[in-house]
Amino acid sequence: MMGSIWDFGIREELVEVENRIRESIRSDEPLLTEIASYVIEGGGKRLRPTVALLAFKAAGGKDPTQMIDLAAAFELIHSATLIHDDINDGGSMRRGRVAAYRKYGVQNALVTGDFLYVKGFAIGGKFSAPIVDLTATVSAALAEGEIRQKKRSGDVKLAREEYLDIIKRKTALPISASAQVGAMLAGADSEIVSDMADYGYGLGMAFQIVDDVLDVTGDPKTLGKPVGTDVREANVTLLAIYALNNGSSVKREELIRIIRRKRKEEEHVRRAMEIIRDSGAVEKALKDAESFAKHAKDSLRHLPADSKYRGEMSKLADFVLKRDF
Amino acid sequence: MMGSIWDFGIREELVEVENRIRESIRSDEPLLTEIASYVIEGGGKRLRPTVALLAFKAAGGKDPTQMIDLAAAFELIHSATLIHDDINDGGSMRRGRVAAYRKYGVQNALVTGDFLYVKGFAIGGKFSAPIVDLTATVSAALAEGEIRQKKRSGDVKLAREEYLDIIKRKTALPISASAQVGAMLAGADSEIVSDMADYGYGLGMAFQIVDDVLDVTGDPKTLGKPVGTDVREANVTLLAIYALNNGSSVKREELIRIIRRKRKEEEHVRRAMEIIRDSGAVEKALKDAESFAKHAKDSLRHLPADSKYRGEMSKLADFVLKRDF
Repeated sequence: MMGSIWDFGIREELVEVENRIRESIRSDEPLLTEIASYVIEGGGKRLRPTVALLAFKAAGGKDPTQMIDLAAAFELIHSATLIHDDINDGGSMRRGRVAAYRKYGVQNALVTGDFLYVKGFAIGGKFSAPIVDLTATVSAALAEGEIRQKKRSGDVKLAREEYLDIIKRKTALPISASAQVGAMLAGADSEIVSDMADYGYGLGMAFQIVDDVLDVTGDPKTLGKPVGTDVREANVTLLAIYALNNGSSVKREELIRIIRRKRKEEEHVRRAMEIIRDSGAVEKALKDAESFAKHAKDSLRHLPADSKYRGEMSKLADFVLKRDF
Repeated sequence: MMGSIWDFGIREELVEVENRIRESIRSDEPLLTEIASYVIEGGGKRLRPTVALLAFKAAGGKDPTQMIDLAAAFELIHSATLIHDDINDGGSMRRGRVAAYRKYGVQNALVTGDFLYVKGFAIGGKFSAPIVDLTATVSAALAEGEIRQKKRSGDVKLAREEYLDIIKRKTALPISASAQVGAMLAGADSEIVSDMADYGYGLGMAFQIVDDVLDVTGDPKTLGKPVGTDVREANVTLLAIYALNNGSSVKREELIRIIRRKRKEEEHVRRAMEIIRDSGAVEKALKDAESFAKHAKDSLRHLPADSKYRGEMSKLADFVLKRDF
């Protein structure tokens, strides 16, 4: 569980978020609760609740009851998308466990995803219209990002800007919204609300780029999932884009051939990862991640300099860069 | 489109519902809009919006703006579940067209379903807490019904009460909620709100039983989808339950063997349908549907006797019994 992974001064509130989630997935139908628990208690980093609670505290929020509710809603919606993503990508492992659809079947997993969506929106729907709007807008953007990513699968002409737009929709906007609603619920002024949205955006972009890096450089045991997934699924990430545009033309052609192969053997995947690593793409991508993390930290400048939570938000941005899981 | 199928004195409002739906599925990602439009403009009976608008009018509602919004939300959520249902059931046709997942692929269809959920909840989330709660409760119940139906697939011991509970969750409760919110938005007192919930429940149960009957007796051309689907998918409906409990023991055994076959040839499906028809199950099921439709009509008794819309609601209950599509 999250609490054991990191602690940014909001451990107690995160425990409450877990309780709220557990409460809301109770169902008349035991199998539904079982699958939902399997997915949610499998862990995950609880990045969205963490960001929301930190922004809430940093922006001067006092009673966290509402924030805990909404953080639970965001995590429920996030879990719904993870289940559906795994079905779509054929991902076999998630958070160190067999993916839900492999354990319980596609049909049960699909419906459990819907159930988690409903439960998330049931909580989110209790909030003010601007919060409902924001939640819906980023959830719709996520679906758009997913469609766009799939459409461009295997497309070795994908431009850096197009990749950045996809991860913005799929990862950065939901995290940005988490930080933003934190400030909104704290009653912060519009400058701070907009700063927090920027923080979440920078953090989310950095997080996703590091995720893509870890898929090439990470240790499957620490990650809790196999590496090389992006190559295997013909997902053209920032690393592939750099490798395709900077490597030698011979290696470039080889990488293109591997990405385009319908059926890839493990040796093809390994070879593609090697080409990517040798091209210097990892270092370049990490530079981008650093610059997004810096953007996140710069967005903290209007918060009180002595605020404990401003410090924690800054630490979180550093942590996202250095993580190996 | 609906308007051309039936007219219960709310044609203008239904056109507005269509406009509201079309507006809300616009997306930056043209493919998402295309798939969503394909599913939604494929038609469908618009039963939920019809019921909501009629209950609203019958309960004395004046300005239908809010009701039109919420009716659109209910139809969006319903369309989301249809797309996911088709993926889960392997249904090849829907509303006279190739199912979305067959035309656009499972991945794109799955994400479009999520997108429609989000759009539905985005509208629904603007309403008061009791309406958000009700929407979420029936949407969660629908997921529970879906899981339960799948769990009991091929189970020839399914009891009539268990079948009724499944269709209550999958069909009757969402229709009941539609009628209920109609009365709520009209500002009706709690007796009328509860009456309208009863009306929707009775109508929804009758509707689903007739749907199951049409899967055995209907004409695929009129229905816009193949018949025999329940037998093919080993869905034990009320008809199968009656046939299993009332037919001769020889035919009973034959029906069980067919239902349990993993791979069914078309002749098996035809034979099972014949056994069901010969058992008198169709007539028994239609009796049940009639009694649910009567329950719906009885629930109109506290509405003003001279109300035009009370009459239309009664006509709708009759229509649901007689429909052949």
